[in-house]
Amino acid sequence: MSTTRIRKEVDEALLAFVDRRRPALRAISEDLAPLLSALDALLGGGKRLRPAFCYWGWRAAGGEDGPGIVAAAASLELLQASALIHDDVMDSSDTRRGQPSAHRRFEALHRAQAWPGDAESFGGGAAILLGDLCLAWSGEMFETSGLDGASRLRGRAVYDLMRTEVMCGQYLDMLEGTRRQANVATALRVVEYKSAKYTIERPLHLGAALAGARPDVAPALTGYGLPLGIAFQLRDDVLGVFGDPAETGKPAGDDLREGKRTVLVALTLERASAAQAAALERRLGDPALDRPGVDELRALIEETGGLAACEAMIERYLREAEKALETAPITAGAREALAELAVAATTRST
Amino acid sequence: MSTTRIRKEVDEALLAFVDRRRPALRAISEDLAPLLSALDALLGGGKRLRPAFCYWGWRAAGGEDGPGIVAAAASLELLQASALIHDDVMDSSDTRRGQPSAHRRFEALHRAQAWPGDAESFGGGAAILLGDLCLAWSGEMFETSGLDGASRLRGRAVYDLMRTEVMCGQYLDMLEGTRRQANVATALRVVEYKSAKYTIERPLHLGAALAGARPDVAPALTGYGLPLGIAFQLRDDVLGVFGDPAETGKPAGDDLREGKRTVLVALTLERASAAQAAALERRLGDPALDRPGVDELRALIEETGGLAACEAMIERYLREAEKALETAPITAGAREALAELAVAATTRST
Repeated sequence: MSTTRIRKEVDEALLAFVDRRRPALRAISEDLAPLLSALDALLGGGKRLRPAFCYWGWRAAGGEDGPGIVAAAASLELLQASALIHDDVMDSSDTRRGQPSAHRRFEALHRAQAWPGDAESFGGGAAILLGDLCLAWSGEMFETSGLDGASRLRGRAVYDLMRTEVMCGQYLDMLEGTRRQANVATALRVVEYKSAKYTIERPLHLGAALAGARPDVAPALTGYGLPLGIAFQLRDDVLGVFGDPAETGKPAGDDLREGKRTVLVALTLERASAAQAAALERRLGDPALDRPGVDELRALIEETGGLAACEAMIERYLREAEKALETAPITAGAREALAELAVAATTRST
Repeated sequence: MSTTRIRKEVDEALLAFVDRRRPALRAISEDLAPLLSALDALLGGGKRLRPAFCYWGWRAAGGEDGPGIVAAAASLELLQASALIHDDVMDSSDTRRGQPSAHRRFEALHRAQAWPGDAESFGGGAAILLGDLCLAWSGEMFETSGLDGASRLRGRAVYDLMRTEVMCGQYLDMLEGTRRQANVATALRVVEYKSAKYTIERPLHLGAALAGARPDVAPALTGYGLPLGIAFQLRDDVLGVFGDPAETGKPAGDDLREGKRTVLVALTLERASAAQAAALERRLGDPALDRPGVDELRALIEETGGLAACEAMIERYLREAEKALETAPITAGAREALAELAVAATTRST
């Protein structure tokens, strides 16, 4: 299958899974409809990167095409939906994938219905519950994928590890954000757990484990997936500051407004004069940061050489991944698809 | 096993599961230690009601004693931990099981460390992530319980349904709270999904399904579990208003301060004069409600006859459960234990 074709099949599997749950929710109460429409809106976007890496991990290990692996891979998109919904609550983000974030949608519903209670607290609570539902459903979709019990048993160990890693990585990310003392090394540790393992390495491992890969496959996939995952997150950091809102689905400079302590910020602070560092520290995380303020910080990140250093890191990690891919003991079709995905993952944002 | 003995074994299984995960978290970062200590504090309390009903559902269907069913049953306590942690964030509750709620613990950590970011937002975010981790771990503990694949396949269908039901029930609960138009019928619908099914009926069904129960067992367990679950929640509602903080682990009258639209409140409003209803509506959900305010509302709930009506409902549902238990096609040992649990579940709070 091509990477375009797998994306389409993942979309169909996701839709089919959610559709099968609609009647049960309706049977409980029609009042649950907003949960489903918020989920539909979120699942309408996204690049399905994690399912793609899972699928190609399976093919890399010689697994054959079929609906089971597509459904198991697609379940990662529900895990990601849960993470995004909860992340947006934690960051008080207004938008996601170019649309209102889930908690803002529920807030808007509350206001439109003119309910007497507090709209913001209803929005946050409803989004927490929807994220919980997505997390529960991701496990359910994986277990009911149709893959046999032995495959799932092998895959489950990876799935469990991946979930723990991403939740811990997010905690560390928040911690660095609130401690405001991140350097390049601590920021990279967050990237490793929150993003590189979760987005690329573990989905590849999951696919490979499901296919019963030979013992040398997983380390080879790490050789490709971990550096690529770091490059992917660094690209995301750059897009979070310099990206086009039409492409990122977020307002311009949103990461600056949220005060994210990214590797890009750490690289900039390493290179900044005392005055530049003070200026960055002062504006970073200011929710009222306007367009001129964003432009000022962008200029600062460029002038210090922070941006160039980040681009050089992306290039270095991407090359490392591509080099590892060349000699990985995997199928030719997977090698070709993973080379294509490496470019896709590092040239734009999810 | 006695109900005391099963509680002890569940405690041990929970501790063993969490202990097995400590090294992995430590290996990622020592900074993750507060996640584990917040979980330890929460798991230090609780009556383990859901594991008990799951265990006795298994025994009711003729399942034999063993560590597998204890671990599978204990996994429900991690699901409950997740629900409590997220519930406390949604309700901005300060205490749980007589201790600071998880988000308040993380807030206190933030303040103690004098980190520069916002303590409240860190506390809420960390608690959301800890709840996610507990939810993921509950599934992991169930799948690694040691029960065979065929048992788990049967149980998983109940587990999946239970998770969806409780999350939907919590959404409906929040919706009724914010719409403020709950009547006895709508409040009972919330009780059914959020509490009766989740706390008693589904744990019983889960145990029975794991044991491969005959088809007539689950309906009989519903006949006992559903009315008992309603009685359990109504008792919890009464304790939320009239309970002793030493027993409930929550400040006196906390449900009034949170503005919960319980069956007790609906029964009171049904019986209240216009002036009484207005007084109740005015004070319910006031976060600043002080002790005299609590006493005033308590008096109102008693004077209208709301409390007596609620006690009569508890009695009626409890009798219905006990009657169903008498003729249920289950083992004698389970019948005896479930009779004991019925009293335990309706005479105090979890």
